Amino acid sequence: MNEHREQMIEIARAARVASRAVARAGAERRAAALNRMADSLAAHEDAILLANRADVEDAREAGVEGPMLERLLLDEKRLLGMVRAVRDVAALPDPIGATVKEWTRPNGLKVSRQRIPLGVIALIYESRPNVTSDAAALCLKAGNAVILRGGSEAFRSNRAIASALSAGLAAEGLPPEALQLVPTTAREAMVDLLQCSKEIDLVIPRGGEALLDFVTRNSRIPVLQHYKGNCHIFVERTADPKMALDICYNSKVQRPGVCNAVETILIDEPIARTFLPALADRLANVELRGDERARAILPSLVPATEEDFATEYLALKCAVAIVDGVGAAAAHIERYGSSHTEAIITRDQQAARRFLAEVESSTVMVNASTRFADGGELGLGAEIGISTSRLHAYGPMGVEELTTTRFVVMGDGQVRA
Amino acid sequence: MNEHREQMIEIARAARVASRAVARAGAERRAAALNRMADSLAAHEDAILLANRADVEDAREAGVEGPMLERLLLDEKRLLGMVRAVRDVAALPDPIGATVKEWTRPNGLKVSRQRIPLGVIALIYESRPNVTSDAAALCLKAGNAVILRGGSEAFRSNRAIASALSAGLAAEGLPPEALQLVPTTAREAMVDLLQCSKEIDLVIPRGGEALLDFVTRNSRIPVLQHYKGNCHIFVERTADPKMALDICYNSKVQRPGVCNAVETILIDEPIARTFLPALADRLANVELRGDERARAILPSLVPATEEDFATEYLALKCAVAIVDGVGAAAAHIERYGSSHTEAIITRDQQAARRFLAEVESSTVMVNASTRFADGGELGLGAEIGISTSRLHAYGPMGVEELTTTRFVVMGDGQVRA
Repeated sequence: MNEHREQMIEIARAARVASRAVARAGAERRAAALNRMADSLAAHEDAILLANRADVEDAREAGVEGPMLERLLLDEKRLLGMVRAVRDVAALPDPIGATVKEWTRPNGLKVSRQRIPLGVIALIYESRPNVTSDAAALCLKAGNAVILRGGSEAFRSNRAIASALSAGLAAEGLPPEALQLVPTTAREAMVDLLQCSKEIDLVIPRGGEALLDFVTRNSRIPVLQHYKGNCHIFVERTADPKMALDICYNSKVQRPGVCNAVETILIDEPIARTFLPALADRLANVELRGDERARAILPSLVPATEEDFATEYLALKCAVAIVDGVGAAAAHIERYGSSHTEAIITRDQQAARRFLAEVESSTVMVNASTRFADGGELGLGAEIGISTSRLHAYGPMGVEELTTTRFVVMGDGQVRA
Repeated sequence: MNEHREQMIEIARAARVASRAVARAGAERRAAALNRMADSLAAHEDAILLANRADVEDAREAGVEGPMLERLLLDEKRLLGMVRAVRDVAALPDPIGATVKEWTRPNGLKVSRQRIPLGVIALIYESRPNVTSDAAALCLKAGNAVILRGGSEAFRSNRAIASALSAGLAAEGLPPEALQLVPTTAREAMVDLLQCSKEIDLVIPRGGEALLDFVTRNSRIPVLQHYKGNCHIFVERTADPKMALDICYNSKVQRPGVCNAVETILIDEPIARTFLPALADRLANVELRGDERARAILPSLVPATEEDFATEYLALKCAVAIVDGVGAAAAHIERYGSSHTEAIITRDQQAARRFLAEVESSTVMVNASTRFADGGELGLGAEIGISTSRLHAYGPMGVEELTTTRFVVMGDGQVRA
């Protein structure tokens, strides 16, 4: 047994034991603990910003720059945002212990399904240090213990944040092992952690496709996958043109670097001659790449390749294709989509219904911006990620998606005949 | 690319395409298809029994005997039972399309969560040929396509059954590829199938621990685990002795070879001197193995080792231990249990509540036989298995557990500020 493996098993076992205390603490103490964590985060501001400065300096020396460096950076304002986010999660309704359903069997057995925590959740993420507090708060709110494994660039920041959060937990009398940061960023250690299927119930990787692939390939623990968001809008022939332009603009331009930004706009053939030029006008700051039919209308468009339609640009670029009706739009989405979010803009209820029936994505929308595909915006309170695979949760995941249910059976002596 | 891999990818892709037709067929056509499957199963009785006879003969020649051979065997009566089971599943309420929850956001967006199928389910199982029709019916009822990979001893039986079922699907105009049997039992083919994570949404292994371990280790697709049932009964000091004896007897003796049979009985210390002899008397045909404290009361008991407490006997054997109250009982279960099913027998509501709070199994019971831990008995209509891991489903899984939910968002032009 190598050094890492022993250490990872120890961390996982301690998390399992601590998870029971969090599960049984009750709603009030869990909320109190989260508020203590927020207090402690604020109280450790100096230490956290100092640690972050060291991370940022090293990253800069290593040649990291631009958005990558920007993501790593913490300042007073961002730290305050993190503190506020933990308090917001503390204030959410507690999901644990609720009876989800109940019924009585003909033999008098009272059966119910009761919401319980998942147990121990391992979160594997990349550079943003705020994930450390956001994700930890959500996991603990749902009654779980959490093991955090952040990226190496943010290691000192994460360590300072996690230790402040653990101190908050301990101040409420809960075991600090309910929130642990893996003390090494060695890949082999991560692989060892991913073998602890007896102690850890769920792994959530947050990051690029390479990280997700690595985790899925190496894990013996169930993995919740958040793959890319190659989102589509279909502008159907009866769409209100102004609404369609507003939604396309908002979905593409409001924040192009995130997974719920639109990446391909499909235009219904009968309106293409008028709508496409209006769209090009409205999205003047976006590089539009058109299929042949779009370029027949607007020859100035960059030609779109097969690859363009499969690409999540995360930038001010957008693919455009002309399609013949809802069926063709759904077929295009089936071929190139990533099961994340797709919207139809239409005034025809039948077209809307058909779109909803034929498109299998985790979030489907009628007459709204794809940018609403987000746990907070949809009313889940907060979000730990967006699942693009169907098991356990499909789409934005909030606190409730970090729980499961068990069967509780109350009898008065029933035996089976 | 080897020969198997190509074939497995082809099967998985065909299943994915077929799954869409099943999902969109609607409740009535799905039920009709299941009834056609039942008809077809009955109509192919001769072919199925003939195929089964060949399997049984080969198995006998290979030295298979006893319960193993018994499990493989089909006759008219058993086939009739399979036909009836498919009709029973057809008659269950259709879960697809239901709105599970809905709410309106302050900006007017109407958000709902709608139940949809999982997509494509691969079922990997061992010898019983009835699983072929039982599991296929449940998966299809929930709007999924299913890929079946049975054991090699039952290959010809499974092929005859699957082809009868597919013919029934086709008779209703649904694609027969929605139900496919893997045409080889080569292990490498199974491994290739388990790599098709783009096409298959869920793998359910049904069988011994070795099979589960193999599937979990080799799968890139999420796996739902049904590990062993090391079930416990705790007879608390206030228990009605007659009720406790009846429940212990039923839980152990009614059908000892199944996962919800009790394997360890824990007796509260204050009643041990009277209850243990009564139990030994009632379970006269069961080999009881006691811990030291039990043997101090009843020296004739076989001594129980550490291993006994961790064993799923699946036989007329039972471990017995004396414990000091609910806390000690819960600690014993935490140490040796398998998260399947545990029951307390008590007249003290506070003891019952504490037991429910401290025991983390997927089914927890008060004053009832562990034998009720079964999808049919708990009112799920039928059962595809019992999950002992917490992700997606925990405990008995019925039709609803073979579905997921998506977000449907209805707007009137909302964009994000």
